Amino acid sequence: MDREQPNLREVKIDGKTVYAGRILDLEVDRVLLPNGGQAFREVVRHPGAVVILPLFGDGRVVFVRQHRYPTGEVLVELPAGKLDSGEQPAACAARELEEETGWRATEIENLGWFYTTPGFSDEVLHVFLATGLEAASDHTPDQDEAIEIVTWTAEQALEACRDGGIRDSKTIATLFLAQLQGFLRT
Amino acid sequence: MDREQPNLREVKIDGKTVYAGRILDLEVDRVLLPNGGQAFREVVRHPGAVVILPLFGDGRVVFVRQHRYPTGEVLVELPAGKLDSGEQPAACAARELEEETGWRATEIENLGWFYTTPGFSDEVLHVFLATGLEAASDHTPDQDEAIEIVTWTAEQALEACRDGGIRDSKTIATLFLAQLQGFLRT
Repeated sequence: MDREQPNLREVKIDGKTVYAGRILDLEVDRVLLPNGGQAFREVVRHPGAVVILPLFGDGRVVFVRQHRYPTGEVLVELPAGKLDSGEQPAACAARELEEETGWRATEIENLGWFYTTPGFSDEVLHVFLATGLEAASDHTPDQDEAIEIVTWTAEQALEACRDGGIRDSKTIATLFLAQLQGFLRT
Repeated sequence: MDREQPNLREVKIDGKTVYAGRILDLEVDRVLLPNGGQAFREVVRHPGAVVILPLFGDGRVVFVRQHRYPTGEVLVELPAGKLDSGEQPAACAARELEEETGWRATEIENLGWFYTTPGFSDEVLHVFLATGLEAASDHTPDQDEAIEIVTWTAEQALEACRDGGIRDSKTIATLFLAQLQGFLRT
């Protein structure tokens, strides 16, 4: 059943930015298809982001619960946030962890990266494990974000992936990467 | 460390659709924050999509390899596709599986759903397990998609999640949901 095709690439012919925004831009490009035809591609350009798995020594994981306006729902997710201009992913992870949860990590380790929605966006998520957690006494939450903290055991987190308590792709994928690399105790 | 906040919701004040496209629309809304302030939210409205884990009786999994224009890369992903207007997710899963891979499933089982990018989009991905795979003799691939088929054991798939051979969030998350529900043999 395996088929081979010599060239899968789509090549840009022309395009335009139809919206330039605060967290994303939207481009519409005309592309040349491998079969010689043409198509339009709608592309959300995103600066990239980080997701953090904050892990206590006893195996519990810190999540955030927040209203996600696009979905109209309150969701439980791992802490995350987009890269500021020129910001290194590890620095962003440390910053977002503290801003969102009030915890500061002694160690921040990269577990990999993935695309969130390669069909319509270039957003890359850098995945970090944060350990050696200490309360940041001077913690001042971001004024634009209303966030609750949820602390679950790894077993509770996996159960939430199964039963719909977690509905966020990056959170599910990150828990899996951590489990595959031996960091989740269940 | 657990904090409680009585109301996390952001409420729309007004907004506009700045782009209405083929696979997505972009809205920019002004919202009232729980703290009484205001902010703008850029929201990609998406019709929703399906992702399919096609599983052979011997435990191998069917993936597709295709150029993803937004990322500029050729990626290995589980078969997936967006819902047509009014289309039921299970019907979409059966259709996309056959269009992209040439395999037809005797059984299509829903394993759940998740949001791909709740920070900026309402896209929902419905997850399906496809078993009882039979070659569709009348298979005609979508003319706009140049796709190669990749068939891996579950162990190869998990190794690809670990080593970067799979860089797609929905694929990683779907493999995890299938593993958590006992469908992956490793």
